Amino acid sequence: MHIEIINTGTELLLGNTQNTHGGWFGREMFRLGLRVARQTTVPDGDAIEQALEESIRRSDVILVTGGLGPTSDDLTREATARVLGLDLIEDEAAMRSIEEFFATRNKTMAAANRKQAYAPVGADILPNNNGTAPGVYVPPRMNAIRPCAIFLLPGPPRELYPMFFAEVEPRLRALAGVESSREMRELKFTGIGESDFHQGIDAELAAVEGLEYGYCARISEVDLRLIGGKEAIDRGSAIAMKAFAPCLISDDGKSLEATVLQLLQEKKLSLALAESCTGGLVCSRITDVPGSSESFTHGFITYSNQAKTSLLGVVEEVLKEHGAVSEQVARQMAEGALRVSGADVAAAVTGIAGPGGGTLEKPVGTAWLALARRGCPTVAEKVFHRRDRNGFKKAVSQSVLDLIRRELQQSP
Amino acid sequence: MHIEIINTGTELLLGNTQNTHGGWFGREMFRLGLRVARQTTVPDGDAIEQALEESIRRSDVILVTGGLGPTSDDLTREATARVLGLDLIEDEAAMRSIEEFFATRNKTMAAANRKQAYAPVGADILPNNNGTAPGVYVPPRMNAIRPCAIFLLPGPPRELYPMFFAEVEPRLRALAGVESSREMRELKFTGIGESDFHQGIDAELAAVEGLEYGYCARISEVDLRLIGGKEAIDRGSAIAMKAFAPCLISDDGKSLEATVLQLLQEKKLSLALAESCTGGLVCSRITDVPGSSESFTHGFITYSNQAKTSLLGVVEEVLKEHGAVSEQVARQMAEGALRVSGADVAAAVTGIAGPGGGTLEKPVGTAWLALARRGCPTVAEKVFHRRDRNGFKKAVSQSVLDLIRRELQQSP
Repeated sequence: MHIEIINTGTELLLGNTQNTHGGWFGREMFRLGLRVARQTTVPDGDAIEQALEESIRRSDVILVTGGLGPTSDDLTREATARVLGLDLIEDEAAMRSIEEFFATRNKTMAAANRKQAYAPVGADILPNNNGTAPGVYVPPRMNAIRPCAIFLLPGPPRELYPMFFAEVEPRLRALAGVESSREMRELKFTGIGESDFHQGIDAELAAVEGLEYGYCARISEVDLRLIGGKEAIDRGSAIAMKAFAPCLISDDGKSLEATVLQLLQEKKLSLALAESCTGGLVCSRITDVPGSSESFTHGFITYSNQAKTSLLGVVEEVLKEHGAVSEQVARQMAEGALRVSGADVAAAVTGIAGPGGGTLEKPVGTAWLALARRGCPTVAEKVFHRRDRNGFKKAVSQSVLDLIRRELQQSP
Repeated sequence: MHIEIINTGTELLLGNTQNTHGGWFGREMFRLGLRVARQTTVPDGDAIEQALEESIRRSDVILVTGGLGPTSDDLTREATARVLGLDLIEDEAAMRSIEEFFATRNKTMAAANRKQAYAPVGADILPNNNGTAPGVYVPPRMNAIRPCAIFLLPGPPRELYPMFFAEVEPRLRALAGVESSREMRELKFTGIGESDFHQGIDAELAAVEGLEYGYCARISEVDLRLIGGKEAIDRGSAIAMKAFAPCLISDDGKSLEATVLQLLQEKKLSLALAESCTGGLVCSRITDVPGSSESFTHGFITYSNQAKTSLLGVVEEVLKEHGAVSEQVARQMAEGALRVSGADVAAAVTGIAGPGGGTLEKPVGTAWLALARRGCPTVAEKVFHRRDRNGFKKAVSQSVLDLIRRELQQSP
């Protein structure tokens, strides 16, 4: 099945707004075992008509985003009707729903919004519960040029995503004959690279009948996506686990920070963090997770040596002798954070983010991590991530969170 | 001038890698006064040929990214030569530079890399100092179908961006007749929305001869881009400053966090931060800026009430009486951070990120900020950002940084 995406929006081509639709549709299609054959971005206005005409000749399904608004630049409905040689008519139900959208918000509907209730004769109206623009579905049989299904969808993700799941996915499944038993599972790993998967388990995965799979490499993380029936996915999952179980973050797509928080909650442990080179990023990632306040209590961003000494009790002589980026200082930071906060677990990190500050012995990219825990010996680890400043912060924050994960999973 | 971008890469359509090229090219073209008319993403392999053929019939300039690697899927060179009816020949200089790339890294060149030195007869080779794939430039006169210039560029940003500036931009300027005096200035504002610009200064800006402009709205930030000769830009800048000077972050594209750091460095002031609801994001943004360790010393992530009391000396009765999200607690957090850190300036924030924790009186989205400074009265502000958890953290971190900016700019 040849599927194309057409994104309309001048702001996407001016670079004002990052076009995230391409990647998003790609992932959702992959989940359904489908592939996007081409993605095109055109400005608002007439360009949509040409792009649509070309695309119809190649495609079985076209998903168009944007251009359903009330302004004179929003021409996706008109262009589609023209290309297909269909009339646009006002849909009564759509009109009522737009009126209601404004009424429930105590706003007056502008005359311009009226055109949002128009659709090509015979098309399905796709309700939009999160905005004024209903979507439109033109089934293949209404397409005189070629039996190609066309979806017109709103551009803003908060309107697009719910409409995709409620209205588009069921129709796509039917069009493509996707088995309803087909599902996707995402296993996240850290501490190994994509090449380890290729060399280690690619051949085994490829031999599982009815299984599709793919990798997605991120900073210090590789996500393995398995698609198929439950049995095939279970077999693929078992192959990956046999090879790389210690590196598994989660087998349900959960982020590393959410995994750490879940472990803390299950074990009823509180967490404190002491950060130097990551400058607050570990704390920020942990607090990205709703409910993190149940477990995370204290963060110490000790960027200066004086802060390390006064807040965490790192010994001045140790700083002088070993330097701020050293195993000794990382251990003292973790133990200090544990003591001062009264938390059950404390992790610490100190390193050289660069661009300045590196030496031959401790080059930019070096970091020491430590984890202290009540009643357990403190552990420490050295990592090296040679990346630009932001990449380094991201990679080291991943190492810190993974140290916590491993320590919590290993202990009873 | 009709310019199209073609991005090749299966990973872009699978959603494994976010396609950031579209937006990046858009911004760079805008800077030159040019516009991208269409952007297309196709998978690796044969699809590039069809896309290129269609695009040539519409375009004056085509920029192709990706598919210049050594694998059998990297077919951009071959496809371009085929479409243009030109032979591919090995370029000696390119071959030597690829060999050197491996030699200086003590790596052996694989036989497959040889094909990276091939280019259509008569095309220019664009040197790549950051990878093995040289770029290719086919000037309009070599294009028998239509006088359309074609650039073949590497996909990875760290290779693409330097090559664009060194090799593509000068040729584009010549092709498009961009005046060499033409420049771009980016003014960043916060505390006002895009509609304020439309209503306030759009008409005045439009009346400036030789000035192009555009807005880019981000979370709690609007960037105004001015393009033209220096005089036109100065006039546009004066119009914006007259209307919105107090809201200006920077007039050279500098981020809010970098602006705050520059102010601190100029005034030789050190900074401490105390964060509750933003959970470390303000610290992390400040430490994203190289050299931040000169001014930023202490961060207190006091996520629990107990942390607010024990680390910053927030009075328990005040917490009980007014709640953690209150003017009183924000003030005590800032004053506590100032006292404990010994810094010259301390900012604090406490709020309700949600999704849980809101009340009728203090709904999700409420935050109190405070700024304490040696020898000055502490100031406090309430802000309200109704967004999802991550959007809230981003918007509130912007408010905190902007409070610091305003206070530092107002004082001598």
